Amino acid sequence: MYEDLIFVSREGRAQRIIEEIWGKAPLFVCVIANTEVGKIKGISVAGANPNITDFTPPADVELIELGECKCIDGVPVTPEGIPTPALITKASLNLANIPLLTINAGLNILPQIPFVDVGGKAGNDIRKKHAVVKPQETFERAKIIGKNLAELCDYLVVGESIAGGTTTALGVLVGLGYNAFGKVSSSMPDNPHANKEKVVKQALKKLDDRNVFSVISEMGDPMIPVHAGICAEAAKKIPVLMGGGTQMAAVLAVIRETEEEIMNNLVIATTKWIINDKTSDLSGLINEIFPIPIIATKLSFANSKYDGLQAYENGFVREGVGAGGAAVAAYIRTKGKINSKKIFKEIEKMYKVLLNF
Amino acid sequence: MYEDLIFVSREGRAQRIIEEIWGKAPLFVCVIANTEVGKIKGISVAGANPNITDFTPPADVELIELGECKCIDGVPVTPEGIPTPALITKASLNLANIPLLTINAGLNILPQIPFVDVGGKAGNDIRKKHAVVKPQETFERAKIIGKNLAELCDYLVVGESIAGGTTTALGVLVGLGYNAFGKVSSSMPDNPHANKEKVVKQALKKLDDRNVFSVISEMGDPMIPVHAGICAEAAKKIPVLMGGGTQMAAVLAVIRETEEEIMNNLVIATTKWIINDKTSDLSGLINEIFPIPIIATKLSFANSKYDGLQAYENGFVREGVGAGGAAVAAYIRTKGKINSKKIFKEIEKMYKVLLNF
Repeated sequence: MYEDLIFVSREGRAQRIIEEIWGKAPLFVCVIANTEVGKIKGISVAGANPNITDFTPPADVELIELGECKCIDGVPVTPEGIPTPALITKASLNLANIPLLTINAGLNILPQIPFVDVGGKAGNDIRKKHAVVKPQETFERAKIIGKNLAELCDYLVVGESIAGGTTTALGVLVGLGYNAFGKVSSSMPDNPHANKEKVVKQALKKLDDRNVFSVISEMGDPMIPVHAGICAEAAKKIPVLMGGGTQMAAVLAVIRETEEEIMNNLVIATTKWIINDKTSDLSGLINEIFPIPIIATKLSFANSKYDGLQAYENGFVREGVGAGGAAVAAYIRTKGKINSKKIFKEIEKMYKVLLNF
Repeated sequence: MYEDLIFVSREGRAQRIIEEIWGKAPLFVCVIANTEVGKIKGISVAGANPNITDFTPPADVELIELGECKCIDGVPVTPEGIPTPALITKASLNLANIPLLTINAGLNILPQIPFVDVGGKAGNDIRKKHAVVKPQETFERAKIIGKNLAELCDYLVVGESIAGGTTTALGVLVGLGYNAFGKVSSSMPDNPHANKEKVVKQALKKLDDRNVFSVISEMGDPMIPVHAGICAEAAKKIPVLMGGGTQMAAVLAVIRETEEEIMNNLVIATTKWIINDKTSDLSGLINEIFPIPIIATKLSFANSKYDGLQAYENGFVREGVGAGGAAVAAYIRTKGKINSKKIFKEIEKMYKVLLNF
């Protein structure tokens, strides 16, 4: 049963939730934000070209919604030419006819498509004071979004796009007292744990109290409270697939501090590249916080004609823009008709067109 | 059948659409904007106190979503103490458990709740050049909203809140060649047709061409293209109740210029105060543009304990914030369980609390 999915932990619970939503109609929500942390050297693959970092999240959602980016030429790629995981998200949502809602949690560059505004501001370098402003306010507004969206669909899939996000996720996890050093993922095969740890330890020095919103403000990014608020409130009524890798651990840790009773309606949905990653430990993190189910799509680029996609098999990118969650949702929504093979074929077609091969 | 509703025109078509959506789940969308036209003396009841005009639309949606206004103290009231029709909208949506989505089409004051941004700017006085900037761009973005929302609900109800909106509606109608002078409604019993006509005729002098977006830019307000874009695109898939009075004629006229083939999925849903208004002619306007069905709620304040609500029976306010559409939708969604009597009782309760009686 559900042969396109990998059941990583709490398989029984995951299966019961999938049974509940099999064939039903989801909404895909993408929470996007910027943080100056994405521009620190040696942290993010995006940091190799700090000037375009701010454009990646808006370009990602433009690509999904319009089929082309407006705020940049072409599509977001790493310096090596590896394309954004938004390709996976777009292929999945298109094939399964799943609608998108973009949430601006705090951006320097606005997407040229409609988006929901929660009054957030782009995040600062966490080595500086109050890197995220008013996280409680954006969390509360995000709860309003979650409450309304829960009336509109059978389940939510909530992804994110923010360059530098695994470092701020590490910051929030460490700030909340979890043993997270060396466990967050990276968009590079050579995960720069030491660099991330250095930044987070500097940020930690500013932290006076362990209140969840102080921790987000000093250690985190604007995406985290908004993602958490949407998931926490929507999960009171409907199942929520948290679409992402180790950043979802930080979101889950925030939810645990604020709305623990809804944890049973949450599932992490990610890629096999995260699950197979030897340089990070999603399961370990999640089990330390609260053991919600983890599932992954079997989507593979091993047979791709293109080096830029093959690179995903070699530890580049791995996840982002809710790619794993979108692939899982496409499979569930279409009762298995849209599986990872069909999504792969669609991505190959899109790659050819969008990257001019 | 449907005894809580007034069938004003095209009853057969209206009944078939209601049959199709009876008991089904709507989403209520409120498109809010500001225009300097609302501050011109002798045009809008809001013009009596121009400084608070900009606050009315955000306060309306805050009231519906949160049960209280954040950007002002109390609730929006006319100088005579007559409360905003958002009370009707709120009572209807609450009782029938209908979710709200707020769209910022162009505001000076942002609501302190989540809203969708389409990149719009507040409108200028239409006697000045280019009062509405980039209406085609906001129209196109609104179409993206409509497309996505059509995947999420069985039908849409789209209301508006903008002070000064009947004058800009008149401007768009006249600019598009309709015989609309003397036909738009007012929030005052003594409809200031002459003042509106003077402003519109001054604006008309600037109009070089009759392209629909030039007309909106020179004669209209930011709400109109956004409302039109959402309705036009959503109606390709689902029925759409256009919640409002004579302003909906201007929206319909824009839709007719851009997406005529979907007109059969549109219905005007309004209040009996608009239908009974001797100073305006909604049916005449709609039939001149395209004869879509018009229905109205029987909601009456004739038996209210409060002068502020009784005033609606005497020609004050009449409609706004999608009040009529929300009441109709509550009735349809609950298969008649939430009728105008129950909505009235709820409004009386809310009035007592919110206006401290």
